[in-house]
Amino acid sequence: MERLSTHSRVTRDFPPDARYLIGVSGGRDSVALLDWLISLGYERLIVCHLNHQLRGRSSDADAQFVKRLVERYNQELATLRLPGARTGKRSARHATAGRIGFELGSANIRALGKKQKMSVETAAREARYAFFAETARRRNCRTIFVAHHADDLVETFLINLFRGAGSAGLAAMREISTRRIDGIDLTTARPFLCVWRKEIDDYVGEHGLRFREDATNKNLTPLRNRIRHRIVPYLEKTLGRNIRQNIWRTAMIAADEEKWIDSELRDSPHADLSVVKLRALPIALQRRALLKWLRAQNVSNVGFDAIERVRSLADRDARIAKVNLPGNRHARRRAGKIFIE
Amino acid sequence: MERLSTHSRVTRDFPPDARYLIGVSGGRDSVALLDWLISLGYERLIVCHLNHQLRGRSSDADAQFVKRLVERYNQELATLRLPGARTGKRSARHATAGRIGFELGSANIRALGKKQKMSVETAAREARYAFFAETARRRNCRTIFVAHHADDLVETFLINLFRGAGSAGLAAMREISTRRIDGIDLTTARPFLCVWRKEIDDYVGEHGLRFREDATNKNLTPLRNRIRHRIVPYLEKTLGRNIRQNIWRTAMIAADEEKWIDSELRDSPHADLSVVKLRALPIALQRRALLKWLRAQNVSNVGFDAIERVRSLADRDARIAKVNLPGNRHARRRAGKIFIE
Repeated sequence: MERLSTHSRVTRDFPPDARYLIGVSGGRDSVALLDWLISLGYERLIVCHLNHQLRGRSSDADAQFVKRLVERYNQELATLRLPGARTGKRSARHATAGRIGFELGSANIRALGKKQKMSVETAAREARYAFFAETARRRNCRTIFVAHHADDLVETFLINLFRGAGSAGLAAMREISTRRIDGIDLTTARPFLCVWRKEIDDYVGEHGLRFREDATNKNLTPLRNRIRHRIVPYLEKTLGRNIRQNIWRTAMIAADEEKWIDSELRDSPHADLSVVKLRALPIALQRRALLKWLRAQNVSNVGFDAIERVRSLADRDARIAKVNLPGNRHARRRAGKIFIE
Repeated sequence: MERLSTHSRVTRDFPPDARYLIGVSGGRDSVALLDWLISLGYERLIVCHLNHQLRGRSSDADAQFVKRLVERYNQELATLRLPGARTGKRSARHATAGRIGFELGSANIRALGKKQKMSVETAAREARYAFFAETARRRNCRTIFVAHHADDLVETFLINLFRGAGSAGLAAMREISTRRIDGIDLTTARPFLCVWRKEIDDYVGEHGLRFREDATNKNLTPLRNRIRHRIVPYLEKTLGRNIRQNIWRTAMIAADEEKWIDSELRDSPHADLSVVKLRALPIALQRRALLKWLRAQNVSNVGFDAIERVRSLADRDARIAKVNLPGNRHARRRAGKIFIE
């Protein structure tokens, strides 16, 4: 993973001596990311682990594993800090260098998913980010590292494509992105987004890192599972090795475009939406504006169909003034405004 | 295909009594489109057929087949126009109603491809559109109907995705699009873009239409062939029926976004490009602007790599001032400008 240190925007834009959160499930990818960042001199990380309570004792064991991992790194770092243990910059920083922190959260994902009518995967993600945001506020730290890698990006891209999510969905992951959660602007950084699973495997092997198999696979939905284990291998077999690379590239371009389009829509999240203003936008921007607006109104799981239903309210010839949205909510048009109820 | 008559933007925006070109290869799709448009009252069509000379006598037979097809429709229309043969609008228009026209062109695609270092598919497309534009000028008619359908869109989307073409490539086909060719603004309309191959098959069967099998398959590159006959069926089998529908939807959204982004870049095609201006754009727009600019400079087959090479010329730290482009051309930076040589 040598090429990472020079190529990643993340390590350039987020210098090692500052404090960052890092999401660690205990699975292979996050264990590798933690080790790699520490080896680069990131010694003030705060490891965040959310117990998803999805697999009983096994989930508790994941949490225990991550806690011990952090303890071991702290012991190791303390040893390295003994005079003479290392030369140069690292030992010189000795007095100010921090310890790796640990934050443990817990959420009943299954109950949450049921209550909010979300899939387990969506509920888990929402709960994780709520936990990250809460920790960010408490520890006064606005950036979290997560271990999404290039294969994750390709899989997510294909999932969104096959679900018909539109190009906003195609740009699901960016190397660096900022999202407002519960009043906190949390920046997510993904240093591994240009690293393939194979390279992480190699790194884990070379450094003899231990990880939790269960934690690695716990977020595998049936669809992601089929895409990882059947579709992508089939595409490679039928079309050649560089397929993954090419899809990855398209996903990265889509992400750059998404970022820019998003910046064009900066002024939209009001509580109600002017029909006249919406109509004035090109169709492409109407869809983006609605997606952004619905998310700002906390309507979750917004798909293309929901967006098109709301968009139809702005139609000059619209005969209906109310449409259904996910989670038992509704959009209504009245007096030239669209609002959620 | 009843649903088409009410849903297609094309039949709404292009009324039947005006004159239009239509591209007819003699294959199933274009034969169906011709028949369907005539049945809707489009009686002033000009059928355009380009002999690609790729399959010797078989190519000549395609041309002959299309010529006879046009003759038969004209006979039929003449019969229908006899007093009493039809009631209502069509026979009332009798005196002014036109005949179906026929324009035959010919091009040595293989030689063309070799000379301009293009794939046969690209050379064929370029030659076809040059022929269409030339015919458009001569017949004073600026719109051409072509028979691309929903499966074509899905396949083209996947081809571009697997080639890593970026989102501009993902928006390869629009229902209605306008392109400047040899000084002519030619509008291409695709009434079948929301119609599946299966529906066209049904239409052809119901109406007992004859078509040329060879012409249907002549543009099948190995990649398209594999996507049509292996990848798409595999995706449907593994992920369910609505996969094609969902990819189609994503492609249509990408097309709407492309149209809008393109309109944002209206002022770019100068002969040279200001490095300062280029740098001022967001990365997403830099790529689009370069794509548009390279095409305007007649650099064909512009892929992502070529765009990124030219983009690197605008880099503050750029050490090179010249990069290679397809077709043995080069982009060079000098005195704050980028130009092609």
